[in-house]
Amino acid sequence: MAEESRPLALTMGDPAGIGPEITAGAWRSLHESSLRFAVLGDAALIARSGVPVREIDTIGQTADVFAHAVPVLPIPLAAPAIAGEPDSRNAGAITTSIARAVELARNGQAGAVVTNPISKIVLKKAGFAYPGHTEYLAALCNVPGREVMMLACPELRVVPITIHVGLRRALDELTTEGIMTATRTTHAALIRDFGIAAPRIAMAGLNPHAGEDGSMGTEEQTIIIPAMKTLRAEGMDITGPWPPDTMFTPPARARYDVAMCMYHDQALIPLKTIDMANGVNTTLGLPIIRTSPDHGTAFDIAGRGVADPASLVAALDMARQMAQHRNQT
Amino acid sequence: MAEESRPLALTMGDPAGIGPEITAGAWRSLHESSLRFAVLGDAALIARSGVPVREIDTIGQTADVFAHAVPVLPIPLAAPAIAGEPDSRNAGAITTSIARAVELARNGQAGAVVTNPISKIVLKKAGFAYPGHTEYLAALCNVPGREVMMLACPELRVVPITIHVGLRRALDELTTEGIMTATRTTHAALIRDFGIAAPRIAMAGLNPHAGEDGSMGTEEQTIIIPAMKTLRAEGMDITGPWPPDTMFTPPARARYDVAMCMYHDQALIPLKTIDMANGVNTTLGLPIIRTSPDHGTAFDIAGRGVADPASLVAALDMARQMAQHRNQT
Repeated sequence: MAEESRPLALTMGDPAGIGPEITAGAWRSLHESSLRFAVLGDAALIARSGVPVREIDTIGQTADVFAHAVPVLPIPLAAPAIAGEPDSRNAGAITTSIARAVELARNGQAGAVVTNPISKIVLKKAGFAYPGHTEYLAALCNVPGREVMMLACPELRVVPITIHVGLRRALDELTTEGIMTATRTTHAALIRDFGIAAPRIAMAGLNPHAGEDGSMGTEEQTIIIPAMKTLRAEGMDITGPWPPDTMFTPPARARYDVAMCMYHDQALIPLKTIDMANGVNTTLGLPIIRTSPDHGTAFDIAGRGVADPASLVAALDMARQMAQHRNQT
Repeated sequence: MAEESRPLALTMGDPAGIGPEITAGAWRSLHESSLRFAVLGDAALIARSGVPVREIDTIGQTADVFAHAVPVLPIPLAAPAIAGEPDSRNAGAITTSIARAVELARNGQAGAVVTNPISKIVLKKAGFAYPGHTEYLAALCNVPGREVMMLACPELRVVPITIHVGLRRALDELTTEGIMTATRTTHAALIRDFGIAAPRIAMAGLNPHAGEDGSMGTEEQTIIIPAMKTLRAEGMDITGPWPPDTMFTPPARARYDVAMCMYHDQALIPLKTIDMANGVNTTLGLPIIRTSPDHGTAFDIAGRGVADPASLVAALDMARQMAQHRNQT
């Protein structure tokens, strides 16, 4: 099968956030395109945004419905969804939506999973034990700890090697082994899911000016360069460690396919500064393809119809492209 | 005196770097404008870039010369300047140029000091004991430790509260007192030298998502917020601590005049990502005004005539504006 035709499975996200309205907005943008998705959620909630919706029984019916209505595989809510007022009673529906989407992708009925934003605080109150989507997805796929977060916009791809921990703990957790594992996963995904035959990897330094030969920190010498040596010996095209402040300028970005970053904000500051609207979050290292918009639930503006679906559209588009590439390899 | 008319004192920088050619380029851009500068350096070296030069005896002669030639207060080199081949024998001339420029600004003959790039490695070999320009200038002005580095481009001003130290040491050195001192200096300078009557200050968090209520680091609670409380009580308009990754987007930037940043790359990544060409470095907290281009000596491209003088022109322009504001207050 050269052409990827399976629909994407889109989760509901938090029903009190902007998920329902950006889902409607994404369908408006895409319903005349060849991309198709089905939502695992509440049909009435999506219909509130003024789009036609249709409940379906199996995701296979998506193709027949998508041009005319948002196809919805129903997942009942436990409490009414009120925009801007999250309710932990809906935690079960939110996580069920994710679990069922993963199941559809794992059994091959869906080409990929795209997730709407969730609130960790809301889920935590209901006993959800994961720091976020990424870790939950890795657990659902039985590959905990293998997950790698990549953020992408048209101008830049970044991978934070340490993620949702304080900066001091990120420094403690940074290891040669961790850098190698994340880089290998990223390298494999760029080939398999992004169609880049020989990925050019830029490794960031940790310290100002990449340590300036050890005068401003030694982690480049003790942790980062040893990882680069091993990875190069495995055949990877890796440059660096680069001074973090100059590696995200337009001419610098043109020289690599992905920047491996040592901590969350080293990766996220340049990405969001360059392109807040079109950022996509994707989880590498899973047996399935998963993307999501690069923003949160935005409870503060939910229900007002002002939320921008651009990042969700970009996430759906990237998921489809990744599925297409994976199919062709 | 409402109109600032004193010339700017421009240092030579490393004679083997791009300083001479960007000096020539800046003169070409500016010689028909009302801005005037004199170079403390080697006339023959600047003339190599094909511009007319004239040696002068006192900086007061600048006004008569500038429209026709680059005015140069001569400082002899100890060794021939070969582009791309720095020579520590010239360290004395390089530091003398800085010291004399500071003297001219301190005694009121120059409106401000603008510095061309130097190489710490070259100077260190000759026994220079300072981490960089900024610290040397503070020592020359007898205010060591009071210096605050601000980087600015038309879209953004940032102040890294900790500067040229490794990231781990930056975390160790971050204190409530340090944040307060740097912020007070910045606040005063924005009023005095930038003409901003009520500066809007955005305080960055340290950790991802600004710690998310302590779940990803506690420095926001223990170090940053206490500083903000005291500064607010002193009447400053301070918001934050902001999640570092979303505070540099265009809509976020529109809401503040300066971002106070917790470490070097938190400040420098967004600045250089947004505008590599027009960044200006300025040292606040000194009795004199000092700016510099936001790039290094670029030994790798020196002498080829390809170096872009834009950042030096921006530094000269900002220095003149700052001197103008200071004169009017």
